[in-house]
Amino acid sequence: MTNKNSLQVVALAGGIGGAKLAHGLSQVVMPGSLTVIVNSGDDFEHLGLKICPDLDTVCYTLAGLANPETGWGRTGETWNALKSVADLGGPNWFRLGDRDLGTHLERTRLLSKGWTLSQITKEFSRAWNIVQTIIPVTDDFVPTMVDTDEGILPFQEYFVKQQYRPVVRGFRFNNVDNSKPAPGVLDSIREAELVVICPSNPWVSIDPILAIPGVRMELLSSACPIIAVSPIIGGKAVKGPAAKMYSEMGYKPSAFTVAEHYGVRLIDGILSGFVMDNTDKNMSVEIQKKGLQTLVTNTLMKTIADRQRLAQEVIEFGKELITNN
Amino acid sequence: MTNKNSLQVVALAGGIGGAKLAHGLSQVVMPGSLTVIVNSGDDFEHLGLKICPDLDTVCYTLAGLANPETGWGRTGETWNALKSVADLGGPNWFRLGDRDLGTHLERTRLLSKGWTLSQITKEFSRAWNIVQTIIPVTDDFVPTMVDTDEGILPFQEYFVKQQYRPVVRGFRFNNVDNSKPAPGVLDSIREAELVVICPSNPWVSIDPILAIPGVRMELLSSACPIIAVSPIIGGKAVKGPAAKMYSEMGYKPSAFTVAEHYGVRLIDGILSGFVMDNTDKNMSVEIQKKGLQTLVTNTLMKTIADRQRLAQEVIEFGKELITNN
Repeated sequence: MTNKNSLQVVALAGGIGGAKLAHGLSQVVMPGSLTVIVNSGDDFEHLGLKICPDLDTVCYTLAGLANPETGWGRTGETWNALKSVADLGGPNWFRLGDRDLGTHLERTRLLSKGWTLSQITKEFSRAWNIVQTIIPVTDDFVPTMVDTDEGILPFQEYFVKQQYRPVVRGFRFNNVDNSKPAPGVLDSIREAELVVICPSNPWVSIDPILAIPGVRMELLSSACPIIAVSPIIGGKAVKGPAAKMYSEMGYKPSAFTVAEHYGVRLIDGILSGFVMDNTDKNMSVEIQKKGLQTLVTNTLMKTIADRQRLAQEVIEFGKELITNN
Repeated sequence: MTNKNSLQVVALAGGIGGAKLAHGLSQVVMPGSLTVIVNSGDDFEHLGLKICPDLDTVCYTLAGLANPETGWGRTGETWNALKSVADLGGPNWFRLGDRDLGTHLERTRLLSKGWTLSQITKEFSRAWNIVQTIIPVTDDFVPTMVDTDEGILPFQEYFVKQQYRPVVRGFRFNNVDNSKPAPGVLDSIREAELVVICPSNPWVSIDPILAIPGVRMELLSSACPIIAVSPIIGGKAVKGPAAKMYSEMGYKPSAFTVAEHYGVRLIDGILSGFVMDNTDKNMSVEIQKKGLQTLVTNTLMKTIADRQRLAQEVIEFGKELITNN
């Protein structure tokens, strides 16, 4: 990949799937030209520590520190602190590795000194030699709450503690009306030549980004192509509860449903293009009929090479949309 | 050691030297008959965590979890969290291992839920299968401040961060007047048949225990023998800054100086007996002249067997004092 793309790209990302495509983009886009805006609705306080799972997954992945087997957490991780907590009868349902704990300790320390989450992320990115810009969508605490048949659960209790078993009835982003985008979020969208919505969970990874006041409006005002990559392949989520959520919310999980979820710009939403897996190519015409350009390709990212190839294809698709515009 | 001593023993202890003798006592005294009252003046908050170095050293040692090489920290320890903090530019001057961190995380969590330090210590002791009673001298925050030629320093900044280089002019126990002994401290002294002041630093390990309102008075009211084991051998501290502190405070560091530090009951202090190393046997007569019974023996605890032997000798010395009383 000698000639990297120089267009300004903004990626909206949640956790593992988002981090993979963001990593691919970081390989094919010039350093300084990629901004990743990350979901912070999963963030929570646990064991007295501020934990930002999606933000850390994106940072670890772009820094080359991520555990390649799990997709979350760090490579070469040990688990002695959590073992020690468990031996004392403390909570060990949220898997915190020792190296990962260091991140939470230092972040919590800086927050207590008055730093903002986006300032900390910038500092950590520098320490980890990440040359791309990573921004949590907001510095405010806007926790995603999952309305389920077992009551309203904080996201991580639903997702990790209950292993997303409860049936979902809806989602709330607490405090969202009082929140504002972190510095750089709106500016980066305004300056973007291409916005990519990564294959993250639309309900709990991307919607919490779009819900922060000003973000959706900035996307709608933008003239640049906005492309989503479907996280649903063959009616199933590559990872996590996206398909289960669609079913429980009364939708048939499919690439088409994801395209409808985000909607078409100037009609019912924000998208101008949609990237879907070969498995779902039969839905392509239907999605095009809605008013979206489509790219049908292999969207499953099993290897680092897959990430780069998909990212490059998304960029080229975006360039076509710019030209055709 | 088939026949354990059944007398009620209270040990006052600081960190490593105190933990070693407390461990020896735990081997020769019946379970349920030993209470260890531990200095909490070293406690501090660091990286958002409540850290109790002396308490943890005593607990780890009695639980068989202590690192035998260092005397502090845990066996089989890893250091990945702190490495991670350091990589982010955070403070790593206080050495926190991963297993040790788990203790601080769970303790901090329980404190934030309203538990007291002594309740937590009881719960942790149970989890670690410690059959002796370990009590922090107070549940209140009474931090030791070291008045030095570089200003007044919180204890761990003096001790660990500055490696006790600054010249000491005095000590303060902040908030001591508003503090009270933790539940069980005064009762255990009242019920004791022998009190052992472990070979810990008199200035910063034992004095902070004696300073908690009611403790010194309870010791003075007690009819049982109170025996101190000298932490100074041949004019030097076995470990740490005790001898350096004596010099800087204007005293010649010696076993005699330690005996004078605690003083003689009914005259100028609390002791009835004093245990000193063979190295210092020439001071024995002088100390006896002050009004103290002495035991001259090998007080250096290099091995587990040393701890047991010294503990048994201290117990027997105590029994003699009871008989002679």
